[in-house]
Amino acid sequence: MISLIAKTRDGKPLSHEEIDELVQGTVTGLWPDYQLAAWLMAVYCRGLSEDEVFALTGAMAFTGAPPLEPLGIVDKHSTGGVGDKTTLVLAPVMAALGLPMAKMSGRGLGHTGGTLDKLESIPGFRTELTTQELRQQMDTIGVAVIAQSKELAPADKRLYALRDVTATVDSIPLIAASVMSKKLAGGTKHLVLDVKVGNGAFMAQIDDARLLARLMVKIGHHHDRRVSALLTTMNQPLGFAVGNAIEVNEAALCLKGQGPLDLREEVILLARELVHLVTHEPLTQAEERIRQVIDSGQAWEHFGRWIRAQGGQFNAVEEGLPLAPIKKEWRAEKAGTISAIDTRAIGEVALNLGAGRKRLDDAVNPHVGLLCYAKIGRHFEPGEIVATVFADNETEGDRALRDLQKAMTWGDGPLVPQPLVLDRIH
Amino acid sequence: MISLIAKTRDGKPLSHEEIDELVQGTVTGLWPDYQLAAWLMAVYCRGLSEDEVFALTGAMAFTGAPPLEPLGIVDKHSTGGVGDKTTLVLAPVMAALGLPMAKMSGRGLGHTGGTLDKLESIPGFRTELTTQELRQQMDTIGVAVIAQSKELAPADKRLYALRDVTATVDSIPLIAASVMSKKLAGGTKHLVLDVKVGNGAFMAQIDDARLLARLMVKIGHHHDRRVSALLTTMNQPLGFAVGNAIEVNEAALCLKGQGPLDLREEVILLARELVHLVTHEPLTQAEERIRQVIDSGQAWEHFGRWIRAQGGQFNAVEEGLPLAPIKKEWRAEKAGTISAIDTRAIGEVALNLGAGRKRLDDAVNPHVGLLCYAKIGRHFEPGEIVATVFADNETEGDRALRDLQKAMTWGDGPLVPQPLVLDRIH
Repeated sequence: MISLIAKTRDGKPLSHEEIDELVQGTVTGLWPDYQLAAWLMAVYCRGLSEDEVFALTGAMAFTGAPPLEPLGIVDKHSTGGVGDKTTLVLAPVMAALGLPMAKMSGRGLGHTGGTLDKLESIPGFRTELTTQELRQQMDTIGVAVIAQSKELAPADKRLYALRDVTATVDSIPLIAASVMSKKLAGGTKHLVLDVKVGNGAFMAQIDDARLLARLMVKIGHHHDRRVSALLTTMNQPLGFAVGNAIEVNEAALCLKGQGPLDLREEVILLARELVHLVTHEPLTQAEERIRQVIDSGQAWEHFGRWIRAQGGQFNAVEEGLPLAPIKKEWRAEKAGTISAIDTRAIGEVALNLGAGRKRLDDAVNPHVGLLCYAKIGRHFEPGEIVATVFADNETEGDRALRDLQKAMTWGDGPLVPQPLVLDRIH
Repeated sequence: MISLIAKTRDGKPLSHEEIDELVQGTVTGLWPDYQLAAWLMAVYCRGLSEDEVFALTGAMAFTGAPPLEPLGIVDKHSTGGVGDKTTLVLAPVMAALGLPMAKMSGRGLGHTGGTLDKLESIPGFRTELTTQELRQQMDTIGVAVIAQSKELAPADKRLYALRDVTATVDSIPLIAASVMSKKLAGGTKHLVLDVKVGNGAFMAQIDDARLLARLMVKIGHHHDRRVSALLTTMNQPLGFAVGNAIEVNEAALCLKGQGPLDLREEVILLARELVHLVTHEPLTQAEERIRQVIDSGQAWEHFGRWIRAQGGQFNAVEEGLPLAPIKKEWRAEKAGTISAIDTRAIGEVALNLGAGRKRLDDAVNPHVGLLCYAKIGRHFEPGEIVATVFADNETEGDRALRDLQKAMTWGDGPLVPQPLVLDRIH
């Protein structure tokens, strides 16, 4: 074990056999935490070659638990951001297009939300299904979003927990191997990656994001999966809503053909990648079909079927899920244009309201959240609403407004809006 | 804790408070092994600034156990080599010069021997003394060599054990902090460091050895200790003898003014550094006094008193400690000159004979060992003895001879002997 650590430490490549040994030792517990921790830090400092990452990802995917039979045709992964409710919209859109999507999602931690938390704000919604329920739901409805099964990629589970406490989370090869091992184990054949870039994302720099996206796409190709990636901006929240119920409500609007344009566009761009991966259909042609399934109400219909299938009260969604009682509005005092948004700070406002988790075992409040109408380059006239907060009490509401105000930078003149997609890797 | 690891990982300096916190957490157990392991690997990869090393060494020395009152005036540390029995000679020489030396020594592991193992080959010799015994011995005889007390620098103990299993041993700042924390805790006021360089040493490259020596000397100065360092060659064993009893016998010869010249010279050079550190006496003048205490028999006399004080049967030393029964000689088959010696391999021959430990809990055989007369640049005529092995049985003796032969490279012409001292840092 020590010699494997020393090799990585010295920037010498590990053989496939050595990587298999390492992952086996991770799953069986033969490798103690302190040796894994030292190896992870060596990877952080020295990196891994592409060949090593391919082998590591494969070993993590297929060691310790059998890979799953794919339940859907398409899948999506986002590296996480603020206000990112794309899964809620994309999944029923794909089902409506006849491309079943069964997605394992996670919970929120820190300033980023989690799709499961959002879905659980729908009364009755169950994120844990038996294998039989899941298969039946996929056969009949073609869409499901569930909690990650514990048996999937056990090496990743142990390594991720260690990375979290040893300052080795933000290593590109380790992120790529972690994400892609779960996708490989889950049986995904067609995958679109939404790699967020900006001050609200894990990756603040486009160069890092591009490296990560390229590596993940290559891992997928190496393991015979069809994968493409979009680099999308996270220098402002996606859509307006940040929270749980409030994001479900916005997703519902989007599925009705309404709601914020950036969310709608991002869903359409991700969906057309998936259609293209499966059918090789030209992107613009795919896009037309996607707009049609949304605007015709087919996606909305699939949304309803899906929510009901997992036990959710869809009438509550149709009526708009209830929000926290204290509503605070921030109106522009004078005319101005938004020049920058501290997106992470906005995520933290929602977190402090109770919409997220500071620690893994925190409870999430489904009703609190905010609507942030500020976008980079948007002009506000005096009196226009910049943001609205939904809080449980006055104190928290006032604090949230103050924190939101600190998160905005105002400019003088007209500013160029942020492009939604910064790069496409395929 | 994670933020401290991240700082070191990113090459950002830790404050003194942060280093104290880290060492406290190491001693109290607040910091788990996996976080320490990640931090150690980050140090390995990114290094530490001199300021950080000074603070780390001080914190390691003075956290968790009170520093000792210095028992002697002078002390010595060697980074370890093959055939290094200098402590056995230096300690009574210093006592004879009126400069008491109480030294904590270690046991051998791998290809390098340990002073305690060598001393324990003397029947009756005790390496564990009570504090009272130790004080009394220092007051009356002025020399003692004992096992390291468990309470000294507990942070180093834990960190060293972790480094050993996480491929983070050979990091210059970590080695320097480890060595010097124990010396600071031990109360040493005047210290000479013997930093070995070559293929039998921990440091194979002179540049690394020089960095280490400079750093250790600076740490000492920073903490108000008088310290100097010699870089000495370990591209061949020191003296002829490698083993336990066989090295005691050679040390005894040296104390009688006989034995291998390189050993004698190295002891004298180390001793004059110590005299100079205490008295500021010019090196050459000190050297004269040192030669005199050896050649007059005073050092030998102190040797006898010391060995007896710790329970050793000095008459056995005077007669020459008995060696293993099977004696095998390797005689040169044709004329030739030694051009290179695989010093580590020679250490491993002694190890395989049973003179050392492959694992910490192995027993050591005091009687086995070897005499290697080969030195780089030495010419042998056919029939001259190159090496003699003392083994417990024929098979092991034959194998040792074969391995010794493989460890030598022969050249054609006259070759320049290795200089003994490669650099002096003060």
